[in-house]
Formats: sequence, structure tokens, C-alpha cells
Amino acid sequence: MDFLQVAKERKSHRSFTEEKLDQETIDKLLELAILSPTAMNSQSRTYTVIQDEKILRDLEEVMGKELGRENYKFMGAPCLILVSNPEDIGLRGVQDSSIALTALYYAATYYGLGACWINQFKECQSKEYREILTGLEIPREHVVYAGMVVGYPASQPPAKVKSEPVKYFL
Amino acid sequence: MDFLQVAKERKSHRSFTEEKLDQETIDKLLELAILSPTAMNSQSRTYTVIQDEKILRDLEEVMGKELGRENYKFMGAPCLILVSNPEDIGLRGVQDSSIALTALYYAATYYGLGACWINQFKECQSKEYREILTGLEIPREHVVYAGMVVGYPASQPPAKVKSEPVKYFL
Repeated sequence: MDFLQVAKERKSHRSFTEEKLDQETIDKLLELAILSPTAMNSQSRTYTVIQDEKILRDLEEVMGKELGRENYKFMGAPCLILVSNPEDIGLRGVQDSSIALTALYYAATYYGLGACWINQFKECQSKEYREILTGLEIPREHVVYAGMVVGYPASQPPAKVKSEPVKYFL
Repeated sequence: MDFLQVAKERKSHRSFTEEKLDQETIDKLLELAILSPTAMNSQSRTYTVIQDEKILRDLEEVMGKELGRENYKFMGAPCLILVSNPEDIGLRGVQDSSIALTALYYAATYYGLGACWINQFKECQSKEYREILTGLEIPREHVVYAGMVVGYPASQPPAKVKSEPVKYFL
């Protein structure tokens, strides 16, 4: 699919079928994320792919408790991809995870999948939350600034009108 | 160009011809950046496109002074695109600017241009630096977390080997 079409069709999906992703599809998505740049070429991101339902439900419960959001859900998506970065690289970690997630958004569109950026991870730091990350072998010194849910879309969300100001000094 | 090819060919370019971009080309790049997502769909980014040589040289000089880097240069690129965000949205501003710059990287590749992410803006806060931003009509309450130089590549950098760990819980 032409990149113009990918960029124009990319949307945030919030409803998914129950169909899980096979590992080949996941690897194709991650290949494109890993190809995306990192500040100073640090390549210090780690990707954690979760389709295990018990882990997903535990994470929703623990996060919902800390966020004060009853029934907090990953939108029923079968697959969650966490991107984590070492905390000691500061804002570069936020940048690098955002770059990877942008690449994943495009990659999901390219492969006919739906995706939605999940931004609540950076607000979570409870002991129970950290224990789940530890169980996922995410290093202690890493922060999950954001993640992405992915799955086969159950419906197509309407396109959003986009407009941002541009100033020229040519 | 197919998105797979764009993602694989995207590189950081650090040498450029002197040829400026025409406004139509700039607008095609920015169209793709503006289509990229923003956290909570805030669409609060502002783009500032600079090809005016005096402004570019003044900015290099003022930034080089603050960064303690003699001869600080935007790699001889003819065009600099700044992405700014309101400071009060915090990390979301860092995320949103990173998303737009990732889209610009792909867009530059798609249109046969070279680009390089410039990450020093967030380290600058001198009075002289802020005066240049004000001259560029960048709002007082905005921060430039990053920018991008763009131009026609004078050479092709070698591809970098990319590798980042993935863990599966399927």
C-alpha cells in the first residue's frame, strides 16, 4: 500500500474482533517499529507483546484501580504492545517510544489491522503495576511511556478533520 | 512508494544540496505531519518552516553559543521545520511533536528528500533564542521539543543495522 494511502487511512480504532494476531503478523509490525529512528541511534527500546488474557485482565484491573477508572479496558483488543525505555535517558525515552508507536500505527494500517495508542501507562506506578511489569521481564530501570492495542477492526471509525497552523519564513 | 519501502529507506541525512524546497513540496510534507495523530486529538502543534538564510544563521549562532558548540550548524540543509507545542500539556507535547517528526521523516523519504531530526532545541532557553522564536511568531507558551532539517540529499548515508529486543506473552 502506498504511503500516502497509509497516512490518510490511519485512524485510532476502538473496537476489535476477538481474533488474535499470529506471531508472523506481530513480527511484521515490530520489524517496522524497530526500523524507526531513535535519538542518537540508541536503539534502547524494548517491546513486550501481550496476548495472554490473564495478563491483560490483571493489567487492566491494576491500572484501573490506580487511575480511579472503574472498568478500565484495553478496548477489547486481543493484543497489547508495550514500548519501554530506560528512565535515565529522560525525554529521549519519551521521544523514542513515540516514534516506535507512530511506526506501529502506520504498520497496522498497512497490514489491515486496527490500532489505538494507550497513554495511561506513564501515569501508573503502584507496586501491583510494577509487579506485573516485572513478571513481563521489563527491566526495573525502564519506563513504559505508552503502548498500543492492536487487532482486527470490528468497525471503521469516521475520519477526523485535521487542521494545525503552519507559518512560513521562506 | 509502498510504505514498506519508505520505512526501509528512511535514514538520517546529514549532507544536502543548496536547492531550496518550493512551497508545494513543503505543503505536501506538512499535510502528512498534520494527518498524524495527537494525544487526545488535541491538534495543538504549530509548524514553523524556515528557509530564510539570515534566520537560519542567527538561530545556529544563538543556539551554538548556548550549547557551547562552536560552529553549530543545521548540516547545511536549506530548510528547517520546527514543531512547537503548548508547554502546559507536558509530556503529551513531547509525544505529539515526536509523532509529527516521525511522519515528516517518512514523508521526506516518500518525496525523495533527505531529513534529519534536530534535538537541541529543547536544551535552549536563552533570551536571545527566545527572541528569535518570538520573531517567528511562536507563542510564548510553546516549547520547541524538536525540529527537522530537510533538503535534497547530496549523498546517501549507509543503512544502519537495527536490533531491539522483543518479548512475547501470547
